[in-house]
Amino acid sequence: MENFTYYSPTRFLFGRGKEQDTGRCIGDFGGKKVLLHYGGGSVVESGLLERVRESIKAEGIECVELGGVKPNPRSGLVYEGIELCRREKIDFILALGGGSVIDSAKAIAAGAMYEGDFWDFYSGKSVVEKAIPLGTVLTIAAAGSESSSASVISLETGEGMVKRSTMSDALRPKFSIMNPELTFTLPPYQTASGIVDMMAHVMERYFTNTRGVGVTDRLCEGTMISIIEEAPKVMENPRDYEARANIMWAGTMAHNNICGVGRQQDWASHGLEHELSALYDCAHGAGLSVIFPAWMEHVMSHDVMRFAQFANRIFGCEMDFENPEVTAKRGIESLKSFWKSIGMPISFEEIGAKSEDIPLLLDMLDLENRNLGVFVELTREDCEAIYRIASR
Amino acid sequence: MENFTYYSPTRFLFGRGKEQDTGRCIGDFGGKKVLLHYGGGSVVESGLLERVRESIKAEGIECVELGGVKPNPRSGLVYEGIELCRREKIDFILALGGGSVIDSAKAIAAGAMYEGDFWDFYSGKSVVEKAIPLGTVLTIAAAGSESSSASVISLETGEGMVKRSTMSDALRPKFSIMNPELTFTLPPYQTASGIVDMMAHVMERYFTNTRGVGVTDRLCEGTMISIIEEAPKVMENPRDYEARANIMWAGTMAHNNICGVGRQQDWASHGLEHELSALYDCAHGAGLSVIFPAWMEHVMSHDVMRFAQFANRIFGCEMDFENPEVTAKRGIESLKSFWKSIGMPISFEEIGAKSEDIPLLLDMLDLENRNLGVFVELTREDCEAIYRIASR
Repeated sequence: MENFTYYSPTRFLFGRGKEQDTGRCIGDFGGKKVLLHYGGGSVVESGLLERVRESIKAEGIECVELGGVKPNPRSGLVYEGIELCRREKIDFILALGGGSVIDSAKAIAAGAMYEGDFWDFYSGKSVVEKAIPLGTVLTIAAAGSESSSASVISLETGEGMVKRSTMSDALRPKFSIMNPELTFTLPPYQTASGIVDMMAHVMERYFTNTRGVGVTDRLCEGTMISIIEEAPKVMENPRDYEARANIMWAGTMAHNNICGVGRQQDWASHGLEHELSALYDCAHGAGLSVIFPAWMEHVMSHDVMRFAQFANRIFGCEMDFENPEVTAKRGIESLKSFWKSIGMPISFEEIGAKSEDIPLLLDMLDLENRNLGVFVELTREDCEAIYRIASR
Repeated sequence: MENFTYYSPTRFLFGRGKEQDTGRCIGDFGGKKVLLHYGGGSVVESGLLERVRESIKAEGIECVELGGVKPNPRSGLVYEGIELCRREKIDFILALGGGSVIDSAKAIAAGAMYEGDFWDFYSGKSVVEKAIPLGTVLTIAAAGSESSSASVISLETGEGMVKRSTMSDALRPKFSIMNPELTFTLPPYQTASGIVDMMAHVMERYFTNTRGVGVTDRLCEGTMISIIEEAPKVMENPRDYEARANIMWAGTMAHNNICGVGRQQDWASHGLEHELSALYDCAHGAGLSVIFPAWMEHVMSHDVMRFAQFANRIFGCEMDFENPEVTAKRGIESLKSFWKSIGMPISFEEIGAKSEDIPLLLDMLDLENRNLGVFVELTREDCEAIYRIASR
């Protein structure tokens, strides 16, 4: 086990009706003038936006609004939000939505307290040291951004999107309000994308070269098994409160790093995926569903026993003691079957990706300027092979 | 799943050499004059106390010391600590030791900020609302007090000890420094007591009537399986860093409530045990090792399938689908075998408890003024039956 620091100070308010406490929570953290940041569509139509707005105003807190966040959130709105925060002297940001809204809010929160260009944090030029405090009301179980220190933003350039991430403890939400009922109306494809995303967050931590990490292995496995058990229930009955609640909390456990401390983590599949959603604007979870099994197939030989453990403990595949690679491969097939069973894609074709774009994707990865993967550090050839497997 | 709030803001610094950061951590949280609270013996002899003292002084932080904490920490030293904090205008408390030292530090931290008698918090007369901020350097993996909101103290009265607990977010440590190497010299019996204690913390949460808590079930199971896997390694080789590290982190996971959110918890076995350690001054873990299997045997019929799940998922007992109670009983036997295998007692006799004291123990439980158990709420007759099973 490696040395680590673990710090997760977010206050989680979980359960039915909890969004009514939004205003009070903002007040608890000293917010007097809040930026209410959201997407659009469902939060407006469902009346949730209005309820949250009322809860804030009921506490005598001033409220400025910025809607319009899109999936794979863009830099344009971030710049707008930063300007707005400065102009209006915002002292708290409330993100109402899923990971995209929260990530956009985090970028605004950091950018508004920084003299330079907020993109410096995402390009690796600078590190977030302070940010306007923020809270979340979560409406999509997926990204884990409600508890994480991370944010992913797409920079709009003349030549398309550049999707990059940053991390800082200053970006951790002060509080996150999680009412599983708010996810009842999420369409099946988005629900399933979220399920893949949270599973992928655990898997990026699970495939490690670090030894002596039994506790976190078991926590990873427990979280994944739960996701697999609960997923069919929410797909079949989107209003199953218990199943939605388990999926929602699993999404937080998957990314608050409880499953990742003291071990090397990989994150190559996320890197490979980001170029897919940057180029094709597909759902992040859908992109991961395509990339992860391809990555597994390509790197399996690096540590067959770890893949066998994955197969055996998570999918209950019987261990083939004479040929562990048979078990290992069964695990990958089981994962693909599971993802297919909830309507997720496992090939380029299904997300509108094209094999002829592979050279472009490889260029976008910008491997000259960064490393990709820790379990296996990927070369350009490795990345090409993985994209090829995914495009079969 | 029930509604819940989860809040665990402690900063954990985990790994080799981390105790060297003690002074810096205290400084980060604004400490200028610290009470260094500890037990004695090993922390002095090993030189750890001196190292920590130096780390504090190196940051220019004033340091007042109060040693002498005993296992099952007493009210006498707490009163002394409260006086000392007031007189010396202490603004931070550092607990250097295991759960007893940390619990004593928590009592002092709360008591020093309170006008009344600190025992009010433990007798249920008052609730802790503020406390001097505290940090810990952990030397025993067991109690989980390094991250929990709880503290247990024994009141010294003319007629023996009264052992009670209190809980408050104000008691959560600001930071906890956890170096597994500091547990290398822990004697086998204390190591094993700690293992039982942390397992019991998960089990108090595991046996619940709440349905729809799949994720926390799996996290409980993962934590318990890990403890069972790592325990023989630390018993065989006390200097096995990886095993000590897994046990240490499991102890934190067992009690930071990651395993307990959204569900009813029981805590009857802890209540039944507290009277044993109050009367016989046995190790808390040893008392739990005696009480828990007896409690399980007595309440098993309340939910046979949950006990079968415990047996099957944690100890790998094959499910007997025709007679689930066979599996359930096998789980209890497996637990007893495991505890015996690490040298822990499973009967009254082994801890010097006497069956003729049972009426006294029952009186000490003070059931007229409090409830015991949630999974099954215990009557005086239930408690008697459990003590009788343990004294067979």
